Amino acid sequence: MDIKITAGQVASMLNGTTEGNPDVILTGLSKIEEAKNGSLTFLANPAYESHLYNTGASAALVSKTFTPAQPITFTLIRVENPYQSLAFLMEKFNPDHHPKAGIHPLAFIEEGSLPGSDVYVGPFVFIGKNVKIGKNVKIYPFVFLGDNCCIGDNTILYQGVSVYHHCIIGSTCTIHSGCIIGADGFGFAPSDTNNYKKIPQTGNVMIEDFVEIGSNTTIDRATLGSTVIRKGVKLDNLIQVGHNVEIDANTVIASQSGISGSSYIGENCMIGGQVGIVGHIKIAKGSKIAAQSGIAGNITKENSVLQGSPAFDYRTYQRAYVGFRNMSSLMDRINQLEKQVKELRENKS
Amino acid sequence: MDIKITAGQVASMLNGTTEGNPDVILTGLSKIEEAKNGSLTFLANPAYESHLYNTGASAALVSKTFTPAQPITFTLIRVENPYQSLAFLMEKFNPDHHPKAGIHPLAFIEEGSLPGSDVYVGPFVFIGKNVKIGKNVKIYPFVFLGDNCCIGDNTILYQGVSVYHHCIIGSTCTIHSGCIIGADGFGFAPSDTNNYKKIPQTGNVMIEDFVEIGSNTTIDRATLGSTVIRKGVKLDNLIQVGHNVEIDANTVIASQSGISGSSYIGENCMIGGQVGIVGHIKIAKGSKIAAQSGIAGNITKENSVLQGSPAFDYRTYQRAYVGFRNMSSLMDRINQLEKQVKELRENKS
Amino acid sequence: MDIKITAGQVASMLNGTTEGNPDVILTGLSKIEEAKNGSLTFLANPAYESHLYNTGASAALVSKTFTPAQPITFTLIRVENPYQSLAFLMEKFNPDHHPKAGIHPLAFIEEGSLPGSDVYVGPFVFIGKNVKIGKNVKIYPFVFLGDNCCIGDNTILYQGVSVYHHCIIGSTCTIHSGCIIGADGFGFAPSDTNNYKKIPQTGNVMIEDFVEIGSNTTIDRATLGSTVIRKGVKLDNLIQVGHNVEIDANTVIASQSGISGSSYIGENCMIGGQVGIVGHIKIAKGSKIAAQSGIAGNITKENSVLQGSPAFDYRTYQRAYVGFRNMSSLMDRINQLEKQVKELRENKS
Repeated sequence: MDIKITAGQVASMLNGTTEGNPDVILTGLSKIEEAKNGSLTFLANPAYESHLYNTGASAALVSKTFTPAQPITFTLIRVENPYQSLAFLMEKFNPDHHPKAGIHPLAFIEEGSLPGSDVYVGPFVFIGKNVKIGKNVKIYPFVFLGDNCCIGDNTILYQGVSVYHHCIIGSTCTIHSGCIIGADGFGFAPSDTNNYKKIPQTGNVMIEDFVEIGSNTTIDRATLGSTVIRKGVKLDNLIQVGHNVEIDANTVIASQSGISGSSYIGENCMIGGQVGIVGHIKIAKGSKIAAQSGIAGNITKENSVLQGSPAFDYRTYQRAYVGFRNMSSLMDRINQLEKQVKELRENKS
Repeated sequence: MDIKITAGQVASMLNGTTEGNPDVILTGLSKIEEAKNGSLTFLANPAYESHLYNTGASAALVSKTFTPAQPITFTLIRVENPYQSLAFLMEKFNPDHHPKAGIHPLAFIEEGSLPGSDVYVGPFVFIGKNVKIGKNVKIYPFVFLGDNCCIGDNTILYQGVSVYHHCIIGSTCTIHSGCIIGADGFGFAPSDTNNYKKIPQTGNVMIEDFVEIGSNTTIDRATLGSTVIRKGVKLDNLIQVGHNVEIDANTVIASQSGISGSSYIGENCMIGGQVGIVGHIKIAKGSKIAAQSGIAGNITKENSVLQGSPAFDYRTYQRAYVGFRNMSSLMDRINQLEKQVKELRENKS
Repeated sequence: MDIKITAGQVASMLNGTTEGNPDVILTGLSKIEEAKNGSLTFLANPAYESHLYNTGASAALVSKTFTPAQPITFTLIRVENPYQSLAFLMEKFNPDHHPKAGIHPLAFIEEGSLPGSDVYVGPFVFIGKNVKIGKNVKIYPFVFLGDNCCIGDNTILYQGVSVYHHCIIGSTCTIHSGCIIGADGFGFAPSDTNNYKKIPQTGNVMIEDFVEIGSNTTIDRATLGSTVIRKGVKLDNLIQVGHNVEIDANTVIASQSGISGSSYIGENCMIGGQVGIVGHIKIAKGSKIAAQSGIAGNITKENSVLQGSPAFDYRTYQRAYVGFRNMSSLMDRINQLEKQVKELRENKS
């Protein structure tokens, strides 16, 4: 946002209203702690409200329902949803971070693979045989696309993404650096002599449209059939997705979680960081799972909220955890009760 | 499996028997939910039995001892171990996924490094000085082999594998994309001024034969001596192996587990996902460790089964966890007991 | 350490003293279990003391205050801090592992990027536009440096490190293979139609001097402003650092831990492996957090020692965990108390 715009103009773009001077000139977006004269800042998380009263910003995006606890000396821009409005402004005013274009002569492209129009293929890219690449795709250096892969329009593959043979990535996806798609699933048949025989992993990975996948996340290919990531799924960094897993539409998973083979995650789930999910289970749509939880069996009720390892209802978990923290005093109380009951029983006889 | 074969022929390859029409023609392997006319499917995990009665398959591999709960209208092929038989068939009928051959002119190979016969070295491979590479090795693009590394016969290094100098990988190993072998161990000596002095990590990593390592797993080099992965070990994705660790033969570790420096894992252990193991301990052979457990001390008894963080006997853990889930009602019961005992004591006096 | 030196000479380098023959010739450093004639070994961790009485070493570094429990037949070199002395000797006697020099013709360097003097830039390196690279920097193959990055003097970027555009790395840093710096933070605004709108991540990552980062660790760029890693921080492998996090000076974090967006970790903290830290909190300086713990809120007291998920004081945790392990017998005792109290109450009436 290296332009000049008034608070009133911003409000009008966002279908919002101003409170204070609508003509103040804004020259950039800033975090609330770092905002200075000319900055437009935002209050999306109430935890940061106290910063609002000390910010140097010239204007702030706030919710329509926000009531300041202290006097405000700069312009408020009131909108329905400050976080969505922020996303809108950042997209509108930020320069494109993909200035590269064209197919670089140091890219290595095998026969039968013809990238679509308006693509960027950087130097040191490897594209195997019969790979299909849509329009306006960006492929950064050190990307590997195995034979017979297919990449949809407008997708970005950042440097060092590795896509094994026969895998499919939809349109308008963003795959971050170091992400590994389609490596062999972890399948070994124990033999009688205490070692293991590899089960060939002959399926693939199929990723639908509007998916974003974080750095160094790994998604294994299916033994047979496909590992499937549905439309709109967002995966953070360092996540493990086992073979034959299916993650349904618009589910969001935070960093370092792992999903074991053949499990199904319903749509619109929210899964915290470092969660573990065992194999061969189903998780109902809309489930919310707290960070570091372990899911050991099916979740059949939609919109459940779970915590613990193994996980159960999060309110019950939190009450149980209060007991756990006080376990030492509980033990003292049980000791004391035993002593008193013993006395009572002896007195009685 | 793009061929035509009868159920009887399959049974005879597997030393199995048929039940139903032995002459039905099979044209492919399928998962039980996706099988159609001509498919051979399999029932290896009893959880999927219900699908068997609705499958469209023409035949199914089942165990010799399997008793169907409902009538079966297609051919059963009974074998000792359906999962092992599946592995056998998949290996037999699947096309080789390593069609590449030769040393590509865009590979960069420093002096003194001479790959063996029948190798594949892709474009954009970096091979340092005095690297030894055995026969029939496959080295995909973006692999880095540091000076003085040694790679045994028939080993596959997928795209983006990084092997630091002086590390050794045995024969018939499969190392998946993004795996980092031989980076410095995490060794720092605290100084008096609250910062840290790096301990040089001058050892290496030594991986024996028949080892498979998943994507983005990291195995650090030893401070002195070697970090050792013994014969037949299988490591899943995103695992951390610290410096000077030794993992003994045929141990299997699931995704996202971490083993801290200088610990020893005995042979034939099975370690679940997201397990953490502290440094400088020994784990007896045959140990089984549940997912998300933490191992904080030696495990001296062979074939122990453990759970929890810190972990203890898994049956005891599961009983304790029942108590934890009901902690809220336990607290109520203790409150109630205290009230009643107080009354009894007051009445008595 | 391929030289010959006497125990007395080593002692004098370390401001230490010898006990036994100061003239014994030492030819190498070894772990205590592997030491042989000519080896100098060390006892830094008391757990290894029993090995000392059976070692084949010719000399051992021990602490000034160490009292052997059994007779010693070789030379002791007594120093203030054996681990620091080991670090000093390993650095002094080990050959440089960075023998490479010069800018390789197969490196790809865009316009406006001029590496400083005495750099190594290997083949298959990608350097974008206007990148600043200091003196004596080592850049191994498959490193990606996006446009406008800045790398300080003496820093080492190992093979496959990826640094997105506009990120800054200080001097004398070591970044290990597969580390991803500056990928987009995980920021999505939920929409009304159950899918998510990406919040552009327009900030960067700023890493100060003397930082070491392990393999396959991921550090996301800020939404606005910077994700900051302060001077002397040491991060192990496979760690996740979310957008807008700040890790203050000399904090050390073990493998597979994750820090969610916008959290602040004070200086000189020690964080164990597989720890999870939620977003938007502050952790006071000098905090110590046990492995596998979860931090769900601010830690305001300096030098706290915490354990559990969610974590609390580690001594309280350990006492509580004793109760948890014995939960089954606690339940039996409560059952027994209820029975006895019921009898007492019935008798009374």
